[in-house]
Amino acid sequence: MSLKDKVAVIGAGCSKFAENWTKNAEDMIVDAVFEAYADAGIDDPDRQIDAIFCGSLYSAQGPVEVSESLKLFKPLSSVYNYCATGTEAFRVACMAVAAGVHDTVLVVGYDKPKDRGVSGPSVSIRGVRDLPATPAGWFALCAKPYFKAFGAGREHLARIAVKNHANGCLAPKSFLKKEITIEDALNARMISWPFGLYDCAAQTDGAAAVIVTRASMARTFRDDPVLVKAVVSASAPNPHTDPDNDFLRWKATETAAAAAYRMAGIDDPFRQIDVAQVHDCFTLTELLSYEDLGFCAKGAAKEHIESGSFALAGELPVNSDGGLKSFGHPTGATGVRMIVENVLQLQGRAGARQVAKASLALSHNIGGFPTGCAVAILGME
Amino acid sequence: MSLKDKVAVIGAGCSKFAENWTKNAEDMIVDAVFEAYADAGIDDPDRQIDAIFCGSLYSAQGPVEVSESLKLFKPLSSVYNYCATGTEAFRVACMAVAAGVHDTVLVVGYDKPKDRGVSGPSVSIRGVRDLPATPAGWFALCAKPYFKAFGAGREHLARIAVKNHANGCLAPKSFLKKEITIEDALNARMISWPFGLYDCAAQTDGAAAVIVTRASMARTFRDDPVLVKAVVSASAPNPHTDPDNDFLRWKATETAAAAAYRMAGIDDPFRQIDVAQVHDCFTLTELLSYEDLGFCAKGAAKEHIESGSFALAGELPVNSDGGLKSFGHPTGATGVRMIVENVLQLQGRAGARQVAKASLALSHNIGGFPTGCAVAILGME
Repeated sequence: MSLKDKVAVIGAGCSKFAENWTKNAEDMIVDAVFEAYADAGIDDPDRQIDAIFCGSLYSAQGPVEVSESLKLFKPLSSVYNYCATGTEAFRVACMAVAAGVHDTVLVVGYDKPKDRGVSGPSVSIRGVRDLPATPAGWFALCAKPYFKAFGAGREHLARIAVKNHANGCLAPKSFLKKEITIEDALNARMISWPFGLYDCAAQTDGAAAVIVTRASMARTFRDDPVLVKAVVSASAPNPHTDPDNDFLRWKATETAAAAAYRMAGIDDPFRQIDVAQVHDCFTLTELLSYEDLGFCAKGAAKEHIESGSFALAGELPVNSDGGLKSFGHPTGATGVRMIVENVLQLQGRAGARQVAKASLALSHNIGGFPTGCAVAILGME
Repeated sequence: MSLKDKVAVIGAGCSKFAENWTKNAEDMIVDAVFEAYADAGIDDPDRQIDAIFCGSLYSAQGPVEVSESLKLFKPLSSVYNYCATGTEAFRVACMAVAAGVHDTVLVVGYDKPKDRGVSGPSVSIRGVRDLPATPAGWFALCAKPYFKAFGAGREHLARIAVKNHANGCLAPKSFLKKEITIEDALNARMISWPFGLYDCAAQTDGAAAVIVTRASMARTFRDDPVLVKAVVSASAPNPHTDPDNDFLRWKATETAAAAAYRMAGIDDPFRQIDVAQVHDCFTLTELLSYEDLGFCAKGAAKEHIESGSFALAGELPVNSDGGLKSFGHPTGATGVRMIVENVLQLQGRAGARQVAKASLALSHNIGGFPTGCAVAILGME
């Protein structure tokens, strides 16, 4: 029941995440994938790549966008799980390799939501307790009960925004390169209480790609392959209608984290994991994830935020590249972008945002209402 | 590079395929999945099912439709590859089992296109040589060159429609239960030359489900498990813009068939395969598939149609349940419905449409423009 150490990441690439008005999806796919090819030393993809798994929510034409832009006609499937799509595509690729079906597989996540003709996080997927809702609305549902139960407040959310804005300034491919202050965050216009403007991830266009292969073949590509220690998916009842939901957590993350730690052999994530990319679609989502991922006890996030545990120089840096906050959230791309960042951190190639010691790295994607979660844990040999 | 004989199908279920105005997607999912549970002897899915892969093109809410309708909260991902989605979901499920990541996995394909507010095969995905097009339009593109090259004509297409309408009358869950004559087919109103009404698959709502497990565990569920001999995916350049396309074949099928036969160890498909479900979105698609799947040489389909090779009592019965022609094409469901039919045929449970001898069965899904193809080959131990 494990694929630990069976699959390795041998190449990673990422387009600039931005309002890419002058690029189409195919342009961004090419940017990300050719960077990943070069990173893996792949010069003949038609011979060296055996299959492709892609993920995209807003694709106009479907997976043919990937095959046609790359002129690479291999087994090609699209994987979807709401905002967890990127990590899900990575998961399926890892299973294909671990099953012995394909040796070397390309994973491409991409999306171009800015061309949809709407602005901001304005999608309304379904009602919340029968009211129409936006993501800002339904992700805010935990705020009131959580603040009441644990004495946290908007200033804790603001500190997360400040941290991620600062980290994003150090990532060449991030969208927002703007430091903000706690006052900026607290005084920004309100989007959906308690989320002001700076509590919300931007929407951007982007693509990210990684190449995985059998662990036993990885060193034919590079000397410092990154091993997949775990990659899992979990789902939970729709929290909007789940009578057992306490709105202090997102259950799917708890379930996914437990499964991932079991697969990777981790029993003390805060001590053992060196860097983490977590799904900060909103600052509160990051705060809850600290706890739901077991980085600290339920209710203890605020002390860690105050002490800086999750800052770039803290014990467990979270969102070292600035997260969704700084990169925006081109949905299918996000989970793959997180894996790219973790690969760079593990290989010591993260430049100005390099964390002190990185031998085990986690990434976390949450999706739906939220109903699904995918977690990937990577490590060096 | 194979998953041959590593995975077994232990349960199969299927909703009625029809214009299911009084059922929603969740109703049909429940119909199909609970039939599959019963078929596999699964009475505690929460304990016995480890993960779910679903496929749907027209899903209103995404995969949460599956978890909420079944109240089954397991790792759940959606897989997409246009009209090949059903077989693709099955493929990913088989890889998850073969990788040792999950023991027993539920596959659910479903769609409810009748609620989209359009009628018939009227989706226009993209232009064909820069003209807007419907599936009937782009799948007809091979007709003129093929008829000219090989002397086939509308009467050969009509015979395929007559065969599939007849077979569909023997399938309890089919939509159309109406025998037609060659004259009916030839005289029906024209949809997109050479396709008259009876050359086109209907659009219906439906769901189908299968349960797969590790081959070594299969006999704990039932005495007659069906083994997965091969399941593959292939893609090809968009035929509308591929300068090397001769419009006498759909290349993705040829590539997928070669890979599937290699995996299953088949070198003479016409003799070795006992029953096949092929993607008859239009009669010509079935005709081309006879050749693209290697059941006969390129150009030889018309003699086989005339001699009845692919009739229910022929050497290689094709679309024993009436195919898309009789079941309609609720897109995500179709590939899984084909696998359900092959399971029933292999286990001798196909009732009035049971073929004489069935120990090896193929199913074939084509999707996109068409750009993708997925093939599954099942067999008894």
